[in-house]
Amino acid sequence: MFDILHRVGIKASQEKVYQSLATPEGVAGWWTTDTTGDRKAGGTINFRFTAAGHEIGAFEMKILELDPNTRVVWQVVEGPAEWVGTKIRFEIKQEDDFAIVLFKHEGWKEPVEFMCHCSTKWAIFLMSLKSLVETGTGNPSPNDVKISNWH
Amino acid sequence: MFDILHRVGIKASQEKVYQSLATPEGVAGWWTTDTTGDRKAGGTINFRFTAAGHEIGAFEMKILELDPNTRVVWQVVEGPAEWVGTKIRFEIKQEDDFAIVLFKHEGWKEPVEFMCHCSTKWAIFLMSLKSLVETGTGNPSPNDVKISNWH
Repeated sequence: MFDILHRVGIKASQEKVYQSLATPEGVAGWWTTDTTGDRKAGGTINFRFTAAGHEIGAFEMKILELDPNTRVVWQVVEGPAEWVGTKIRFEIKQEDDFAIVLFKHEGWKEPVEFMCHCSTKWAIFLMSLKSLVETGTGNPSPNDVKISNWH
Repeated sequence: MFDILHRVGIKASQEKVYQSLATPEGVAGWWTTDTTGDRKAGGTINFRFTAAGHEIGAFEMKILELDPNTRVVWQVVEGPAEWVGTKIRFEIKQEDDFAIVLFKHEGWKEPVEFMCHCSTKWAIFLMSLKSLVETGTGNPSPNDVKISNWH
């Protein structure tokens, strides 16, 4: 199995970062504006990506863990074949003025080119999360920073 | 062993991207301004990072492969303990208007927190490479985009 790993530090409290990860409204501010679903473990959350009004991707995830201010874990139920069954994990801890987010997208079967793309794109979205929490404005899809011909 | 993977697409020719990876002057435009060394396989290349005029990091790498327009491979000879012995690989291919860079920092012994940091930071520097080639201006250290308390 192969994992995507990232680490960002956000000048904010753990609580504020957690709120942007643990609620559909929060995630809509940095990943994709079309985020809907539950706000409790065992529930589901749905993410839809569009370009010029057309759907280009959609994920359904089960919320596995919501530990206030410290951890959010999702598992992919529906989405691209490479994603189904993988887990997306955010661990939050405080270091001085920074809430540190340790990110892991774990359980890829093969280190395919799509995994390379997703690794870079997750970094971009974590910087969008940082921007959202620090400035009030993120860059969620469809206004996300484009990194290649795969967007 | 654990690897950091990324993929970016740059609106340019493979040749132009290769020049920014295969020469010290090229790398100085997107990774760290203080890059010096050889431009042939078997040679060495040195990267120095500073903050407020003080050295905060330095790497010496051996140039393992320079395949015109398609591949650059370095191996870390000196630097942080976690980096020594690892390889940094750039593969370049053309897809329509984009030169695709497949990046791999391979051979980490453990998926430590520093690896998470480096993964995110490599994404930021690859976006700096994209900016350099597409617009003429990158964001190399010490003017790189900061991602956390670890810079």
